[in-house]
Amino acid sequence: MSAKLQGIFTPTLVPLDDRGQINEPELRRFISWLIERGVHGLYPNGSTGEFTRFTAEERRRIVQITCDEAHGRVPILAGAAEANVKETLGACEAYAGMGAAAVAIVSPFYFKLAPDSVYAYFSEIARHTPIDLTLYNIPMFASPIDVPTIRRLAEFPRVVGIKDSTGDVAFMMRMIAAVRPIRPDFCFLTGWEAVLAPMLLVGCDGGTNASSNAVPEVTRRIYELCRAGNFDEAMKWNFRLQELFDMMLFPFEFPDGFRRAAALRGFAFGEGRQPLTEAQQRDRDAMARVLQCILADFEFVDRPAEGCAPRVRQPDADRVEQVVRRVMQELDKRGVF
Amino acid sequence: MSAKLQGIFTPTLVPLDDRGQINEPELRRFISWLIERGVHGLYPNGSTGEFTRFTAEERRRIVQITCDEAHGRVPILAGAAEANVKETLGACEAYAGMGAAAVAIVSPFYFKLAPDSVYAYFSEIARHTPIDLTLYNIPMFASPIDVPTIRRLAEFPRVVGIKDSTGDVAFMMRMIAAVRPIRPDFCFLTGWEAVLAPMLLVGCDGGTNASSNAVPEVTRRIYELCRAGNFDEAMKWNFRLQELFDMMLFPFEFPDGFRRAAALRGFAFGEGRQPLTEAQQRDRDAMARVLQCILADFEFVDRPAEGCAPRVRQPDADRVEQVVRRVMQELDKRGVF
Amino acid sequence: MSAKLQGIFTPTLVPLDDRGQINEPELRRFISWLIERGVHGLYPNGSTGEFTRFTAEERRRIVQITCDEAHGRVPILAGAAEANVKETLGACEAYAGMGAAAVAIVSPFYFKLAPDSVYAYFSEIARHTPIDLTLYNIPMFASPIDVPTIRRLAEFPRVVGIKDSTGDVAFMMRMIAAVRPIRPDFCFLTGWEAVLAPMLLVGCDGGTNASSNAVPEVTRRIYELCRAGNFDEAMKWNFRLQELFDMMLFPFEFPDGFRRAAALRGFAFGEGRQPLTEAQQRDRDAMARVLQCILADFEFVDRPAEGCAPRVRQPDADRVEQVVRRVMQELDKRGVF
Amino acid sequence: MSAKLQGIFTPTLVPLDDRGQINEPELRRFISWLIERGVHGLYPNGSTGEFTRFTAEERRRIVQITCDEAHGRVPILAGAAEANVKETLGACEAYAGMGAAAVAIVSPFYFKLAPDSVYAYFSEIARHTPIDLTLYNIPMFASPIDVPTIRRLAEFPRVVGIKDSTGDVAFMMRMIAAVRPIRPDFCFLTGWEAVLAPMLLVGCDGGTNASSNAVPEVTRRIYELCRAGNFDEAMKWNFRLQELFDMMLFPFEFPDGFRRAAALRGFAFGEGRQPLTEAQQRDRDAMARVLQCILADFEFVDRPAEGCAPRVRQPDADRVEQVVRRVMQELDKRGVF
Repeated sequence: MSAKLQGIFTPTLVPLDDRGQINEPELRRFISWLIERGVHGLYPNGSTGEFTRFTAEERRRIVQITCDEAHGRVPILAGAAEANVKETLGACEAYAGMGAAAVAIVSPFYFKLAPDSVYAYFSEIARHTPIDLTLYNIPMFASPIDVPTIRRLAEFPRVVGIKDSTGDVAFMMRMIAAVRPIRPDFCFLTGWEAVLAPMLLVGCDGGTNASSNAVPEVTRRIYELCRAGNFDEAMKWNFRLQELFDMMLFPFEFPDGFRRAAALRGFAFGEGRQPLTEAQQRDRDAMARVLQCILADFEFVDRPAEGCAPRVRQPDADRVEQVVRRVMQELDKRGVF
Repeated sequence: MSAKLQGIFTPTLVPLDDRGQINEPELRRFISWLIERGVHGLYPNGSTGEFTRFTAEERRRIVQITCDEAHGRVPILAGAAEANVKETLGACEAYAGMGAAAVAIVSPFYFKLAPDSVYAYFSEIARHTPIDLTLYNIPMFASPIDVPTIRRLAEFPRVVGIKDSTGDVAFMMRMIAAVRPIRPDFCFLTGWEAVLAPMLLVGCDGGTNASSNAVPEVTRRIYELCRAGNFDEAMKWNFRLQELFDMMLFPFEFPDGFRRAAALRGFAFGEGRQPLTEAQQRDRDAMARVLQCILADFEFVDRPAEGCAPRVRQPDADRVEQVVRRVMQELDKRGVF
Repeated sequence: MSAKLQGIFTPTLVPLDDRGQINEPELRRFISWLIERGVHGLYPNGSTGEFTRFTAEERRRIVQITCDEAHGRVPILAGAAEANVKETLGACEAYAGMGAAAVAIVSPFYFKLAPDSVYAYFSEIARHTPIDLTLYNIPMFASPIDVPTIRRLAEFPRVVGIKDSTGDVAFMMRMIAAVRPIRPDFCFLTGWEAVLAPMLLVGCDGGTNASSNAVPEVTRRIYELCRAGNFDEAMKWNFRLQELFDMMLFPFEFPDGFRRAAALRGFAFGEGRQPLTEAQQRDRDAMARVLQCILADFEFVDRPAEGCAPRVRQPDADRVEQVVRRVMQELDKRGVF
Repeated sequence: MSAKLQGIFTPTLVPLDDRGQINEPELRRFISWLIERGVHGLYPNGSTGEFTRFTAEERRRIVQITCDEAHGRVPILAGAAEANVKETLGACEAYAGMGAAAVAIVSPFYFKLAPDSVYAYFSEIARHTPIDLTLYNIPMFASPIDVPTIRRLAEFPRVVGIKDSTGDVAFMMRMIAAVRPIRPDFCFLTGWEAVLAPMLLVGCDGGTNASSNAVPEVTRRIYELCRAGNFDEAMKWNFRLQELFDMMLFPFEFPDGFRRAAALRGFAFGEGRQPLTEAQQRDRDAMARVLQCILADFEFVDRPAEGCAPRVRQPDADRVEQVVRRVMQELDKRGVF
């Protein structure tokens, strides 16, 4: 029986070389740097790792490199979702053989499935997997996993936890209230570090946080402060992390902002596989300078040579707010709802 | 038994004077102009008439003026929704006394009710109203009325039709398929003139179209061409109407664009009751010049003195598209779905 | 200058008599009971008070009774939204004269307005109101108020706070980060008690919580535990409150579940103004027995004579989860998104 | 220069054998049957073909079999989306070599991209593809392609059309109005046959309709009636098709209902790759009997031995309506909007 997954797992970004291929030496260097900076585990083939943009063969190679480089220093939670149940079980077997501590399997995507179908999918895998698995709930991208389905799936011994990326604290509380009584060992990880401290307050065991690619020191500090019961101090850091998180998340296509920020820590991530227009490229360069200013406040990097404007809080999140609200109105006008 | 409601009903805009009060002489002049331009009926206290921004007393006065001015030339469909069932029934009685042909009652709003509650609300009214009523389905603003609820409500003789503002042609077909077999006389009116001809093709009896405040000639023409089976010619006009409709709808807060366009036909609508910032005022003035250019193409008004730029199709609808898409993505990123 | 609003404000339910009219004696008895049970303030004409289902005259009478009965024992935050700016300002003046501490004004509803329009609306009121006002953000029912709009409105001295009913902890953090630096006195109240303790952790000053109509002792205890820094103990109560909250909220049309629960504390709330079908009535009676079981666990009431089944956590919230997920999928299938 | 794509293209279902592998003989038999029944083209690797549930190798084999079996009798529109631009271009080359008339490329999915990113993705492919391509817009599953993006992409000669699965007639009109003036040859295909006749009325060139797997005769008839200008007759068939479409779509996980209906025409589709619970299996068997009754009304199959209940229109679509409305309300209650 493996130990409970807890702490901050980094959904590892994948450096690419000039030809767009996996940059293995840089990936190895990045993995070791993360471990040295204190992350509690690694999570290759997550959304942050852009698993859908790699081929099946590449996904296996990423896990292989990660397990090999980590070399037992931290547990590996390997993303194992493939095209169908049979292929996914094949990946589970492969990752078990590579020494992963567990696999994470995202709910079926593209087609959005009903709860019963989500249950059927995961239960079929849970019955046959040779390695523990965590559910991965990310309704913005994949079929949602609701509370009753989680509770039903928690009856399978091989299902040992859930990573939830909703950022909905009340939903997390409902999951915990539903599952803990029957599975005290079940692990809850949040993927939404904007509310990391509140999530730890309500009972999360940790997080799989894209931000830990860029500021592993900060996510660990919030985790440790919360574990020590020092929530007020944790919140001070959480507010700072939220500013960074919002700036990495909203102005960029995910996960480009996180790639940019992690690159500022000294790694060559290369161009992403999703192409950008020239206008986008210019925008992103400008936004990256704001990222550098925020990271400089943390004293992780130097300020840009051209200096930093006094920052208004979350300029882009503000813009996003505006846009979101405007759109709901437009959708309403169009009779969508 | 009243005649079936059919044709184009204008959800009448309300002119305001300098003090923000109902401008009765202008309202009367506007009503007579609409009738002379061929609208088949009038619909005071609709969304276009901004019924929620008037007091209960003002709403009654608007219907009184409308009935009085129409003087039997066209039927009046009077919006009768008030704060609760008792108040709404009071309005039904009053409007029956004023000579309205029927009332239209929007589904309960603010609170969004479940189908059973929507049924309970309308059935309570249907049992006691002294005047025929049409349901008003506008899910962008009020509790939706779904197909089974419509079918159940169609069993009340006093419920004689529905105005639907979804613009969803497949939904309209489902309503018609569900209700016509049990109530051949039931009337279906669409509030989404962007697809007026397709709606008439699938079986609508007409529309309550905000655009008919500005271009009653066009909505009538599309209606008559469809009635004559000349759908191809109707579509040519519908494409032109869509351009105008999009420009009245998307860049403005509803119904300001329609007020602006109708004003260009020679009426003084005054300032709306919803205040605008100075920046909004400037934007709206610029957009109104585009409206004038479109109306000039129809030869309803002169071109603005400064001329018209060659129009790109639907500049703002395009922008709206961009915004809508961007927002769905942002909502996704934020885990809303 | 009035004191900062803080603590738990009860958005007071309104008892009705057999004829559906305001039951003044019972309302007075209820108000005094709430004050004796420790609520920090009262908030008449909120959503929980079903302000949209009363006439303008009735809304004034409700505030009058509340101010009179409270008699200075706790501050009154009076809901003052009316049909338009002029009418709303009239209500502000009236409530100032009645001794309210401040008014709460919900964002414009029915029409969903863009941020600039929301700003224009509130700024027009803020310039002319004779009494402090709090913004009321409840995007499920009314036009959303986004972070930049809140920050801009915080520049008006008369705007002293916001009540937010989103339940989104990250959004609350963004508001606080944006406004506190320029207005340290600005007050943040949450309307989503499912996450009351996390909201207080991140910096809320209190809440306007429908649940405090039924269990004022519990909402006060959570508030006091958090103020004392005892978040772990607060969370134990918050989990119990969430179970009750979910059961009052999801199986009923809002706010009927809260009316049912408060009635179990010994008050005659009468039938609501939104009619129910017979089937709904039966369902609600059954759900009320579950409410009684939960309240009995708190030792606020006796168990029902027929006993209590062992409770599964949140049966209806589970069902709602299922339904929500199923619908998103259906909407997807229909091409809505 | 290839001929314009027009008419009904079948997004071909893929029969599986007992081991869950592609059943090549049955696929060949099915393809020839479709061609003999009058479909104008075939579209392997569409959503209906469940392209995401096959491996990259299987997707190529499906196209190979289709091209080989069609043998030039009808044009092949081959779904070519792979994990990234490079892999997708590899598929384009392969399918060009197999004799496909064009490829269809779905907008990037899982990650939901902004319009500029969608443009960047397709323009990169359009510059390098050796074969004509059609855009595939299916916002329920993939990043939406908005009107301005479509117009910009229409400037690439290799981009020859769009398949749109929104079912939004007004949106289709906006696309046509934006693109036809600059690209009269651009082809518009609708994927939402519930409104097939209205879509053809507004200017669509045809459809890629899942229903044509089950009733190729009906989709062809509607197409031909519309081409002949006989819209009234077309609508009679469209109402019947909608009943079948709703029953294949809503009660099942897509595309299982279409598989069930096509199986009733005499083909062995086998179990799908998405597992079902036993309860789901029972439900689906019951629903399949309703499908058989509808198909029997068309005289395509015999009635089931146990007979057919008098059908209420769209029982499940009704249920779906109820669920959809209920959920929007629940989402509202939860403050999602």
